[in-house]
Amino acid sequence: MSDTNGKKILLAHGGGGRVSNDLLSKIVIPKFQDKTDKLTDAAELNLESNNVCFTTDSFVVKPIFFNGGDIGKLAVCGTVNDLAVAGARPAALSLSLIIEEGLEIETLDKILTSVSTAAKQAGVSIVTGDTKVVDAGSADNIFINTAGIGTKHENANLSFDNIKAGDKVIINGTVGDHGMTIMSQREGIKFKSTLKSDCATLNGLVEKVLDATDQVKFMRDPTRGGIAATLNEIATATGLDIELIEKDIPVDTTVKAAAEMLGFDPINIANEGKVVFVVANEVAEEVLKIIKSDELGKNAAIIGEVKPPQGDPVVEIVTAIGGKRIVQMPYGRELPRIC
Amino acid sequence: MSDTNGKKILLAHGGGGRVSNDLLSKIVIPKFQDKTDKLTDAAELNLESNNVCFTTDSFVVKPIFFNGGDIGKLAVCGTVNDLAVAGARPAALSLSLIIEEGLEIETLDKILTSVSTAAKQAGVSIVTGDTKVVDAGSADNIFINTAGIGTKHENANLSFDNIKAGDKVIINGTVGDHGMTIMSQREGIKFKSTLKSDCATLNGLVEKVLDATDQVKFMRDPTRGGIAATLNEIATATGLDIELIEKDIPVDTTVKAAAEMLGFDPINIANEGKVVFVVANEVAEEVLKIIKSDELGKNAAIIGEVKPPQGDPVVEIVTAIGGKRIVQMPYGRELPRIC
Repeated sequence: MSDTNGKKILLAHGGGGRVSNDLLSKIVIPKFQDKTDKLTDAAELNLESNNVCFTTDSFVVKPIFFNGGDIGKLAVCGTVNDLAVAGARPAALSLSLIIEEGLEIETLDKILTSVSTAAKQAGVSIVTGDTKVVDAGSADNIFINTAGIGTKHENANLSFDNIKAGDKVIINGTVGDHGMTIMSQREGIKFKSTLKSDCATLNGLVEKVLDATDQVKFMRDPTRGGIAATLNEIATATGLDIELIEKDIPVDTTVKAAAEMLGFDPINIANEGKVVFVVANEVAEEVLKIIKSDELGKNAAIIGEVKPPQGDPVVEIVTAIGGKRIVQMPYGRELPRIC
Repeated sequence: MSDTNGKKILLAHGGGGRVSNDLLSKIVIPKFQDKTDKLTDAAELNLESNNVCFTTDSFVVKPIFFNGGDIGKLAVCGTVNDLAVAGARPAALSLSLIIEEGLEIETLDKILTSVSTAAKQAGVSIVTGDTKVVDAGSADNIFINTAGIGTKHENANLSFDNIKAGDKVIINGTVGDHGMTIMSQREGIKFKSTLKSDCATLNGLVEKVLDATDQVKFMRDPTRGGIAATLNEIATATGLDIELIEKDIPVDTTVKAAAEMLGFDPINIANEGKVVFVVANEVAEEVLKIIKSDELGKNAAIIGEVKPPQGDPVVEIVTAIGGKRIVQMPYGRELPRIC
C-alpha cells in the first residue's frame, strides 16, 4: 500500500480506512506530535477554568499561498485571534480539512507545517481533527476549519454595554494589509512584491494589555469588512457615534497606493493581524504604550473616539483635509474569499 | 437592500458586510434564537466542569438530502455522537458553513432547520458560527463543520487499555443503513424507498448506559469504514483478537439485499446512529437490556467477544455456516462522501 508515497490526494484518503490511516500517520500526525499536540477523534482536556470561550471559523482563502502566510497559518491566526479578542487565553484548537482530490501531498504538507508553526508560536495545541476528501471539481484545493476553546482572562470584562462617550479607539498597526495582498496576488498587479499580509496571532499582545488593565471595554479583530465593519457594528450595538481621525489611521504606503489604484478604501479591507481596542479614556495612553512595546503593535495608534449620538448612531471620519464623512457598513462584495 | 429576499446565495453573503448581516439576521439567527441558542463570533460558556472533551467534523455528504436526514442533521449527529462515545455530555456546538454561490436560500433554510431540530433533540446548544461563500464551481452546494464541547460523565473511564479478553462487543442496532441509503440514492437504484439512514443523536442512549455502570471499556460510533474499521482499530490498539458472530449482527433485510447486489459487506458500511460498546462480560446482559429499552437501541445485540491473540491481533468473523474469516481494515474507497 503505497498511496501516500504517491504525490496526490486520492478520494480514499478521506474514506476512513487503511489509506486514511496512512495519510494521518505519515503526513498529519507527525506535525502535531510533540508533548502537547496530538490529534484524536475527541480530545480530553483539563482546562484552567470552566469559564470558557468557544469559537469557529472556516477558511477558503484564494490563493492558498500568499505573501506573509498561507491558508494554514491563517486558519490558526483567525481562531486564536477570535479567542483573544473575546478575552480568552487560547487553550486548544481543532483542525478539520476538506481537501479536493488531486491536491499535491507536498502542498498539504506545507500547509500543515504552517498550521503547526503558527500554533506553536501562539502557544496553543491542536488537539483534535478530521479529514474529508471530495472529488476533483467539488472544492478548490483545500478548505480548513478551526474551532478553538480558551479560558477567560480575569481582567476581561468586555461588552458593548461598557462602552461610553469619551472612550478611545486604538489599533495595533496599519490597516488593509491582508486584503490588499490577497487582491494584488489574485490580480497579479505589479506592486505585489512589497505587499505582505499582516496575518499573525495576537493572543500574546492582548494578554499583555489585559494583564495591565481591566478598563478595556471591547476588542475585535477587523477581518472581513475591515475596521469600517467593526466600528459600524460597535456604533449600531451601543447607539453611540464613533469619530475616526483619518490622518491618525496607520496605512502602509504601498497598501494606500494599491487601494487607490483599485478604488478601495483601506478601512474597508480585511486585516488578519489587527485588533481594534475600545478603552476608557483614562487608560488609553498607557494601553497604547503597552501595545507599542510589542513587535505586533509597534505602529499602534489612537485612531478615534466614542461620541454621544446626534441621531442614528454613525461612524464618522474627519478627513485629512478637515472635512467629515460617514463611514458606511461595507456592502460585502469587496473581496470574496480573502480568508 | 433586498438581496436576502432573492432566492440564491451571493458571494456578498459571505463578505462580512451588510449583505452578510442580512443573511444572518433573517435566515440563520432565527433558527437558533431561543433561550439557549444564539450565534456569536465567540461564545462564553460556563461549563459544569473543567474536564472537557473537544471534537470536530466536517460534512461533505452527497446528496445533501437523503432518506432519514440531510447534511444539517448529520452535522449535529456526527459531532454529538463523537462527544457521547468519548464519555462526554454534549454542552455546546459550533456551526460553520461553506456555501457555494448560487445555492437556493430555501435549501439553506431547510438545512438550518434540520440543524436546529437535531440540536434541540440532543439537548445541545449551537453557540457560535461562521459563514463563508465561495464562487460557483468551487464547492458542491454546501459543506458544514461542527465542533463540540462536552463535560465528562463521572462513570466514563474509557480506554483501549481497559479492554481485556472476555469483554463483550455490543451494537445498538442494524449496521450499514446510512451508507447503503446514500449509495442507493446516489446510484438511483430501485429499492431506495425502503432504505433509510440511521442518522440520530446517541447521547441520551449513551448517558443511560453510563448512569448504570462504570464497566464500559470503550465506545465508538462506526461511521466511515463501518464496524469493520472500528473493530480493527480496537484489535490493533489493544493487541487482542475480536471474534464476531455473523448471525448475531443485526442487518436490515433491504440493506443486506442492496449490499449483496452492489458487492459490499454491511460491516464495512458507514453508520450514523450506531455505537459499538466494549463492556465487561459481567455487565454485558445488563447493558444490553438498558440499550434495548431505548428507542434507538431496540435492535441491539451482543455481536462478539474480545479474545486472547493467537499471533498478530485480528478481527475474525464466525460466518453463518460456521466458517471463520478475517475481517480486514477497509481500504477506504468504498463510499466517498458518505458523511
